[in-house]
Amino acid sequence: MAERERYGEKRLLRSWRKSYLNGLEEALDAGYKILQQSGTALDAVEAAVVSLENCPLFNAGKGSVFTADGKHEMDACVMDGSRLTAGAVANVTGVKNPILLARRIMEKTEHVLLAGKGAEDFARSQNLPFENEDYFYNAFRYEQWQQVKGEATTLLDHSEKKFGTVGAVAVDSAGNLAAATSTGGMTNKRFGRIGDTALIGCGTYADNHTCAVSCTGHGEFFIRAVVAYDVACLMKYRGLSLAEACRIVVQETLKQSGGEGGLVAVDQAGNVVLEFNSEGMYRGSIDAGGKKNVAIYMQ
Amino acid sequence: MAERERYGEKRLLRSWRKSYLNGLEEALDAGYKILQQSGTALDAVEAAVVSLENCPLFNAGKGSVFTADGKHEMDACVMDGSRLTAGAVANVTGVKNPILLARRIMEKTEHVLLAGKGAEDFARSQNLPFENEDYFYNAFRYEQWQQVKGEATTLLDHSEKKFGTVGAVAVDSAGNLAAATSTGGMTNKRFGRIGDTALIGCGTYADNHTCAVSCTGHGEFFIRAVVAYDVACLMKYRGLSLAEACRIVVQETLKQSGGEGGLVAVDQAGNVVLEFNSEGMYRGSIDAGGKKNVAIYMQ
Repeated sequence: MAERERYGEKRLLRSWRKSYLNGLEEALDAGYKILQQSGTALDAVEAAVVSLENCPLFNAGKGSVFTADGKHEMDACVMDGSRLTAGAVANVTGVKNPILLARRIMEKTEHVLLAGKGAEDFARSQNLPFENEDYFYNAFRYEQWQQVKGEATTLLDHSEKKFGTVGAVAVDSAGNLAAATSTGGMTNKRFGRIGDTALIGCGTYADNHTCAVSCTGHGEFFIRAVVAYDVACLMKYRGLSLAEACRIVVQETLKQSGGEGGLVAVDQAGNVVLEFNSEGMYRGSIDAGGKKNVAIYMQ
Repeated sequence: MAERERYGEKRLLRSWRKSYLNGLEEALDAGYKILQQSGTALDAVEAAVVSLENCPLFNAGKGSVFTADGKHEMDACVMDGSRLTAGAVANVTGVKNPILLARRIMEKTEHVLLAGKGAEDFARSQNLPFENEDYFYNAFRYEQWQQVKGEATTLLDHSEKKFGTVGAVAVDSAGNLAAATSTGGMTNKRFGRIGDTALIGCGTYADNHTCAVSCTGHGEFFIRAVVAYDVACLMKYRGLSLAEACRIVVQETLKQSGGEGGLVAVDQAGNVVLEFNSEGMYRGSIDAGGKKNVAIYMQ
């Protein structure tokens, strides 16, 4: 009997793991398809993040965690490294793909960051798709929320220390970089909390001259350390490689402050870094030749 | 008659100018009083910003500009350079002193940035004072709003290119740095726009090892350039002095991108920099001996 239970658990874990890896592969394919057709890095990261937002497994878009009020409040951000333009959105409810709203803010307004009801009004004025509560309902997320509901506790979405915020970085054939990030934030969050995802320089940054970075982890630590821009500054002001800059920021600066999480980053030469100080990070990469890598834990 | 009109205008300008300089001096006095009594840099910048928020002349607290809805939505941020902790608030209405709310967020929550109604709920739970619309009404601001009301135009609060966002930086006798910033944002702003003031690394940053910085200007440009943290990075990664770092960021990086505005900054040695690329910036400084400087235009 115990034997059978263990076998059942193992099977469940295997199927769970397979679903996540599939989700990652689909996102990589969505971005790669665009790059293969000489599309831009900006379009590629958008497509990859839309794919992850539409997948119920990750904490963004459809799979977003519950707030203390039983709602879903999402943040997203996109940055175009070729022009240093950016768009971001915080605390929006009902918007199907927050990353599309972030991009619309970048391209159709003079602003960078819009929040709350005002941002939803702008999304409506742009005819972006909305979904009702049913679309965002997810039994697993609901269960996570029930565990802490009514308490003044927030839960990071890191079942077994893997954060659920989604992000993508890319370099295209013209050498342009872009980064995009999207999240549902923390389970049971309240008081209109905004994390690092929506904040340029903290959770997201891109500049052709240095790198494109997208972060996932305990947002408050990423904000105080201005993580994404810190990686860029170590490259441009200290001359470090992308790998060295990411290692210092994630394994030293962040770790010393108690900040758990990681990031994905790419530079103009196509060097890819997937750095994290947590037990695992859902991650993947695909190179110019279409060679894919997806993983969850350390390898 | 023309002679008399010109005389009247000059007298008005003189009295206007005198009021602003008085407002600046009062803020300096409020901060200095705390430092003189061996208070902390954090308490000093808070006191200076509270004084400016209570003065109807500046675009923060009581003197905040009108939004497109005829409301006042305020942002504020504080950072403690000794611990790298920070608190910030965005899009709050009715809160008398947003900077006190930012500090409460830093000290009483695990979060950095709260926004909108949620942030107001938190302010109420902390018994922070609220004021009604009358308190925030100001004929001059109302007139500014009437000029653009109904149009999809926002106005930077820079009558004659002097921005109205308020901020303060300080170093205390223990060598600790702090920065605080507060603003009403842009006249006729809508869609829940958040500017650089509320964003760590963009409008506000403090680290004992480098500097404390508070910015004022066209927020979107300050966000994309991660201005405050860029000054700190030029010091820590390239070894520049505070003055040289501020000059590069404000006169080169920002100016080249079209970003107008300036910043106040201080380092641990007590070097003070008041750098701006606009025609003027309301500004002031006071040294350990109590020597005050206040100014508006270039000198």
